[in-house]
Amino acid sequence: MTTPITPKHYSAETAAAIAGSDDALTGLPAYLGIRTVEVGPARMVAELDVRPELLNPFGSAHGGVVASLVDHVLGSVLYPVIERGQWAATTEFKLNLVTAVRSGVLRAEAIIVAMSRRTAVVHVEVTNDGKLACIAQGTVLIPELRA
Amino acid sequence: MTTPITPKHYSAETAAAIAGSDDALTGLPAYLGIRTVEVGPARMVAELDVRPELLNPFGSAHGGVVASLVDHVLGSVLYPVIERGQWAATTEFKLNLVTAVRSGVLRAEAIIVAMSRRTAVVHVEVTNDGKLACIAQGTVLIPELRA
Amino acid sequence: MTTPITPKHYSAETAAAIAGSDDALTGLPAYLGIRTVEVGPARMVAELDVRPELLNPFGSAHGGVVASLVDHVLGSVLYPVIERGQWAATTEFKLNLVTAVRSGVLRAEAIIVAMSRRTAVVHVEVTNDGKLACIAQGTVLIPELRA
Amino acid sequence: MTTPITPKHYSAETAAAIAGSDDALTGLPAYLGIRTVEVGPARMVAELDVRPELLNPFGSAHGGVVASLVDHVLGSVLYPVIERGQWAATTEFKLNLVTAVRSGVLRAEAIIVAMSRRTAVVHVEVTNDGKLACIAQGTVLIPELRA
Repeated sequence: MTTPITPKHYSAETAAAIAGSDDALTGLPAYLGIRTVEVGPARMVAELDVRPELLNPFGSAHGGVVASLVDHVLGSVLYPVIERGQWAATTEFKLNLVTAVRSGVLRAEAIIVAMSRRTAVVHVEVTNDGKLACIAQGTVLIPELRA
Repeated sequence: MTTPITPKHYSAETAAAIAGSDDALTGLPAYLGIRTVEVGPARMVAELDVRPELLNPFGSAHGGVVASLVDHVLGSVLYPVIERGQWAATTEFKLNLVTAVRSGVLRAEAIIVAMSRRTAVVHVEVTNDGKLACIAQGTVLIPELRA
Repeated sequence: MTTPITPKHYSAETAAAIAGSDDALTGLPAYLGIRTVEVGPARMVAELDVRPELLNPFGSAHGGVVASLVDHVLGSVLYPVIERGQWAATTEFKLNLVTAVRSGVLRAEAIIVAMSRRTAVVHVEVTNDGKLACIAQGTVLIPELRA
Repeated sequence: MTTPITPKHYSAETAAAIAGSDDALTGLPAYLGIRTVEVGPARMVAELDVRPELLNPFGSAHGGVVASLVDHVLGSVLYPVIERGQWAATTEFKLNLVTAVRSGVLRAEAIIVAMSRRTAVVHVEVTNDGKLACIAQGTVLIPELRA
């Protein structure tokens, strides 16, 4: 169940570039401290440490932190499998938060489960110490870059 | 990825009763012709034939048919793992329709991915001839039956 | 809050054609007995009677019936506002079922809340006797018909 | 369409306390710079400034920032309407990102559209300069605090 597609196109160079560019992360991903663990065909793993600054008032990882990690891998998993001149724009996602996470690492695994010329559907699971914390699915649009 | 929970409680009798009660289906499930294929701990498979009466104006299985099959397994998968005196009420779900299905069988597999005392999260995949047609996830509430 | 867009294109003829074609409904919409109540710019209302055949085993309207009505208006609301040569394909939706409905009429109102050249986002509310039964939102793709 | 419920219970003191406690925000809400604009019965408005640190690599507000703001109001809107001894736990939400936002203010308005003893459904719209940027809906569980 839930297996990644076999993509028509796959750039190992792009995958390696994503995996090696954590130091270049800016904005929210940099603040959250997202680390790329693995990038492959139609699959990507990233993680972050649950620091005090990422908690909600109840002492658990803020739902927005989990959602940000989901959003990050949802779009990034597309880059090695889209063509040059295309980009990936997350247009919607839905997540179920199933466990409060107080410490340790949040690890998100994204797989592309369906892909057409203009859209892809991505399934994401977030775990903490092997235990499911969040399950998500979303749609990514694949527009052409304007010249 | 996406493995079912190991339920604390499991009634093989309830599972067998569900699997053997297709003739007793009424309402929409009866009209759609839903057949139970398999019921196990935290897992259920059901299917239906794509008949002309279930199509949309474009000649594909109506999204509502797919959603009905999703809703059916989303709730039913809970019965063997809840306690006597409880019932299962689907409170929300989300689905991505990834392929138009014109004929053959729609097969839905539901697994419970998280469960607490009062709620469960269920992941569903619908396939047609082995090809993914729909991916869904939803929440089921587990209220106590009133005496 | 939640106001419909002002569409760039609107065909009152297409709207009238949809409103007047209930007798031509086939497949699932015909079985469910969907009636078009109103079609306007970026807005559509449809309803159905809650008959015994549409119930779940608990005596309430089956979630799949509600989802089918949602799916019906989610796509149909697009036709008066898309160009000739385009069609509307629901690609995903999410719904919250907030009240069990035992009898009477299910009335769904759909409004387009965002629209680009290739996609639209639609918000749907389903009521029963004025009381909210379901709230939903989804994405419709707007592909070109092949010649 | 989409009107807030009339809550059975409403504490104007709690509402005022939330509205006046922005300086006490910690963790992600503090980093994002969330400001409470208005808290009322079954309704809440909050906003944040789109700063460079909150952008994605394309120069738009990161989807995770929008999701975090959604998650913040989704839960917070509950506090004035729940009883003492209860808390609010967002269990799931879904959002559609409809416009890229490059600067200015993200303003989120949340309304409770349904509420039972143990759950609430909340609808959220995020705007930027009056233009819809995101529409979301989610479920909040209302557990009892343990003694």
